[in-house]
Amino acid sequence: MEENQRPLIFIGNDDGYQAGGIKYLADIARQYGDVFIAAPSTHQSGKSSALTVETPLRAKLVESDPCGHVTFYHVNGTPADCIKLAVNKLMPRQPNIILSGINHGYNSGNSAIYSGTMGIVFEGSFLNVPSIGFSYGDYSADADFSPCEPIVRHMIELAVAGKLPAEVCYNVNIPKCEHVNGIKVTSASMGKWVEEFDSRIDPHGNTYYWLTGKYMPNNPDDDTQDLYWLQRGFATVVPCRADQTAHAAIPDIAKLIK
Amino acid sequence: MEENQRPLIFIGNDDGYQAGGIKYLADIARQYGDVFIAAPSTHQSGKSSALTVETPLRAKLVESDPCGHVTFYHVNGTPADCIKLAVNKLMPRQPNIILSGINHGYNSGNSAIYSGTMGIVFEGSFLNVPSIGFSYGDYSADADFSPCEPIVRHMIELAVAGKLPAEVCYNVNIPKCEHVNGIKVTSASMGKWVEEFDSRIDPHGNTYYWLTGKYMPNNPDDDTQDLYWLQRGFATVVPCRADQTAHAAIPDIAKLIK
Repeated sequence: MEENQRPLIFIGNDDGYQAGGIKYLADIARQYGDVFIAAPSTHQSGKSSALTVETPLRAKLVESDPCGHVTFYHVNGTPADCIKLAVNKLMPRQPNIILSGINHGYNSGNSAIYSGTMGIVFEGSFLNVPSIGFSYGDYSADADFSPCEPIVRHMIELAVAGKLPAEVCYNVNIPKCEHVNGIKVTSASMGKWVEEFDSRIDPHGNTYYWLTGKYMPNNPDDDTQDLYWLQRGFATVVPCRADQTAHAAIPDIAKLIK
Repeated sequence: MEENQRPLIFIGNDDGYQAGGIKYLADIARQYGDVFIAAPSTHQSGKSSALTVETPLRAKLVESDPCGHVTFYHVNGTPADCIKLAVNKLMPRQPNIILSGINHGYNSGNSAIYSGTMGIVFEGSFLNVPSIGFSYGDYSADADFSPCEPIVRHMIELAVAGKLPAEVCYNVNIPKCEHVNGIKVTSASMGKWVEEFDSRIDPHGNTYYWLTGKYMPNNPDDDTQDLYWLQRGFATVVPCRADQTAHAAIPDIAKLIK
């Protein structure tokens, strides 16, 4: 039964199960293995690694085939809920590869900390499974993802071949260009957000605020960072770690705190 | 006007503005400076660095004094929303210190990735302001936080004295003991969650799931990790970084991905 040897590929996202990006990613991934999709019922952008603790989750089957090549659920929770529920309760076995996206819009630089796309990927890395998030620089609902195809295939092929170390996970961003100029492995640019809120007055005279804001990289000319290359038409791969400890700082801090 | 020289201390949490832990932390902090509290209107545990992007935020004043020594808002958003809105729209100037908690329950090991308490702290670290999260090993709403006092004072005093580097931020966990045995500066324990969901059947015959689960550290006997010391009655301080890049992995990954 050679079929049983096909890799099992988990796919999630944060734009919701009806987004074009997840369909595009699944259509490529199913050429490399069986795909199991569990995506949020609704739009979950900016949800980071948030979990749903105060309400129960439900999973609704969207599509499945009797051979198990494609299984597609949506879940009324966050991206991290989706992968946790799938791995624990819905999937027939542990996935061999975890994919997330393709996100409608970038998750570059330290903005990735807010990303639900990356919430799935960090969760995947706790499972010691190669985990890759894909984000594309087109924010529109009807984005054409075809420029992503060679990069998505390259990453999946490395993962299927067992060449992608699972000690780290991968944040892949792809610029909106007809043909990308290449791929750069970089660090995430670090920056700040400015003018973060738009204040308005409601008809009752009360103030409310919309989150908005512009990202300002601390070092825009640093060619070791993802934003630099995205702005020059290159796709970027940032190896990430879910371990938040600043290991190198421990000895100095230990001298201060006793 | 010596009064104007007092440090401005931001305080947030994820248990909501009515939680005992934030009141306890603010009562200590106001002895060291002016406090500005912006806490979620409702319970926001497990919200990580999530942001509210699809609905507007509102801030309600709970308390203020005319001299600006204490200002207290609640905000209908996540912990990260609270600090972003406060720093951008509500506070008279940038804070000198950012505190979060005291959380009702631990945020130790890699569970911290889900923590709204730490969501505030990571946000603070993007501002280059010393940022400290406090979590206590008592999950009850009416927890007695008095064992936390010496550790909270120690950390605030280091921050007020300008001795706490802002290149990293701080995840402080305090065990539920009448007197803690000391403080250890450690890394976060890495582990996995098992039996993560409790499945039930509703009266209509449909399955639903509650998130639950047990944390299993990968290396429970590793004395460089926080969980080891918490279980032995020590408070722990984990220096953390918001930068998610796995810098050391970049050269090897760059050889793979071209």
